[in-house]
Amino acid sequence: MTKEIVLTGDRPTGKLHIGHFVGSLKNRVNMQNSGNYDPYIMIADTQAFTDNARDPEKIQNSLLEVALDYLAVGIDPLKSTIFVQSQIQGLFELTSYFMNLVTVARLQRNPTVKAEIQQKGFGESLPAGFFTYPVSQAADITIFKATKVPVGDDQEPMLEQTRELVRSFNNAYGKAILVEPEGVFPPKGQGRIPGLDGNAKMSKSLNNAIYLSDDADTVAKKVKSMYTDPQHIKVEDPGHIEGNTVFTYLDIFAPDKQKVQELKEQYMAGGLGDMKIKNYLLEILEAELSPIRQRRNEFAKDKGAVLNILKTGSQKANSVAEQTMKEVRTAIGVDYFDKD
Amino acid sequence: MTKEIVLTGDRPTGKLHIGHFVGSLKNRVNMQNSGNYDPYIMIADTQAFTDNARDPEKIQNSLLEVALDYLAVGIDPLKSTIFVQSQIQGLFELTSYFMNLVTVARLQRNPTVKAEIQQKGFGESLPAGFFTYPVSQAADITIFKATKVPVGDDQEPMLEQTRELVRSFNNAYGKAILVEPEGVFPPKGQGRIPGLDGNAKMSKSLNNAIYLSDDADTVAKKVKSMYTDPQHIKVEDPGHIEGNTVFTYLDIFAPDKQKVQELKEQYMAGGLGDMKIKNYLLEILEAELSPIRQRRNEFAKDKGAVLNILKTGSQKANSVAEQTMKEVRTAIGVDYFDKD
Repeated sequence: MTKEIVLTGDRPTGKLHIGHFVGSLKNRVNMQNSGNYDPYIMIADTQAFTDNARDPEKIQNSLLEVALDYLAVGIDPLKSTIFVQSQIQGLFELTSYFMNLVTVARLQRNPTVKAEIQQKGFGESLPAGFFTYPVSQAADITIFKATKVPVGDDQEPMLEQTRELVRSFNNAYGKAILVEPEGVFPPKGQGRIPGLDGNAKMSKSLNNAIYLSDDADTVAKKVKSMYTDPQHIKVEDPGHIEGNTVFTYLDIFAPDKQKVQELKEQYMAGGLGDMKIKNYLLEILEAELSPIRQRRNEFAKDKGAVLNILKTGSQKANSVAEQTMKEVRTAIGVDYFDKD
Repeated sequence: MTKEIVLTGDRPTGKLHIGHFVGSLKNRVNMQNSGNYDPYIMIADTQAFTDNARDPEKIQNSLLEVALDYLAVGIDPLKSTIFVQSQIQGLFELTSYFMNLVTVARLQRNPTVKAEIQQKGFGESLPAGFFTYPVSQAADITIFKATKVPVGDDQEPMLEQTRELVRSFNNAYGKAILVEPEGVFPPKGQGRIPGLDGNAKMSKSLNNAIYLSDDADTVAKKVKSMYTDPQHIKVEDPGHIEGNTVFTYLDIFAPDKQKVQELKEQYMAGGLGDMKIKNYLLEILEAELSPIRQRRNEFAKDKGAVLNILKTGSQKANSVAEQTMKEVRTAIGVDYFDKD
């Protein structure tokens, strides 16, 4: 059986948090261990530069942190190819060829990028590299001939852009070299975890995240600070469940759904204090996070070894990418010196 | 004495004509032979793709023709590095880093590109690669640390864009790695030759060019078809000099300026036929073109050898480019695996 080729990754602009864990890392480990996939996991430094070009240190520092997070959650470099985007020379070249097969007008219509541009408030200072990053993303996916790309719901337009470029390329150069990828979407309502403060998004900039690298004390402090029900002041008061972040987290992390249901009922009836449910959540989170933290600390002892994992992965990814690039160059006809 | 590093080149979208010869090739040979320069001459296939992505055969076919034109006019691969743009991997990468240091708004303001976009009538179908080609051009220049770039007057905005990118890069990454290039402009009024039909521009699409690869018969036919003075019907009629393409060409090509002056006076007075001046021009053009043609035919006999010249030049250019890219990667910090 041919394995499905999967491409996923993260921008190295900070450490990964439990939002990443729930939203994608856990799923990557499952895919990896199922034996049905050939996963490529990219640390997207080139992409991170598109809106962090003047902060290279953030990217440099985050590279190793993200790699440690990967290893900590159980991504196994023997089963998944972990690599660094900037080390794959062919990506820059394929991006260049793709750039000629997409119009400026088409890029302007990309709703995902439009939303991000607005969100980041670029205005007149929009970097050309950020504006065109869907093109580079199409190269990331197609250079490995990935068939499956796990993404959030808001990423469908990026995949559509990739498929268009694949069709344009194959059509322009007369060969079905590149492959159209399919998105793998999280089940409805899953895959996203709110911030500690109840904000819909957990993120570094909102300072509302629990990191995979947080120590036990920090996690405890963060859980204690979580947003619950502001009207639930005394233990005996009836409390609300909806929008209560602690219960949202319990729904996601607690293995004993029956117990969560009982706690919810007790909380709504009154007589269950916030500290009690927070302590229960902390216990559950720690059961998940403490082995991750332990593995992370182990790997962190030998950063050279981690770098070496990235180097080996990048070499492997590079050789796969170069196979595709050979076909690409032949199709385009720029293999002037490799002809017989 | 350190030699000035010069970058020039042509897009391989057709054979070169005497407009290229007068406007740049002759000057390149002079620079090369002066011993004061280290010339890099680029066959810009990557750039040609920005508006010919769906016509790769034109580019493939033109590559060798342009190389033959170079060798025919006296560009010496031992003194000038003739190379093919697409073979320089670092160019794609450097372009990617530059893309994050320039805004979309800044690219939209580039007057050269604006004019070209209008001229080519792209409208909504403007390829992203064409829109951003000044960024790739900045990479071409800076990867070789070129200090001098021979260009037409209308190319100054491209050099200004390059200098801005150099400053942004050096500023963002804290090191004076890249070098600001200076333009070398043709003397006022020189460097441009009108088409056979009197059109200000000699070009393939206007079908008004004499190619370096044209045989003697073709050149003779073309000279005989040249635009002179439409009012000059009978030999004895007084004729006009201004806008008379034959005299414009004589001004450019004839070594005997005294004789041209006499012919002009005679023509204006009446009594000098168009055929006479055309035959004189043909003689002069042939004196210039026939040794070029002969060398071209010689080189054309062994296309493998020409390809080999391009391959060797590309390898040399690549190793120079890689030196710069090493510095670039260290400055940006993406040399993760090359640190001690």
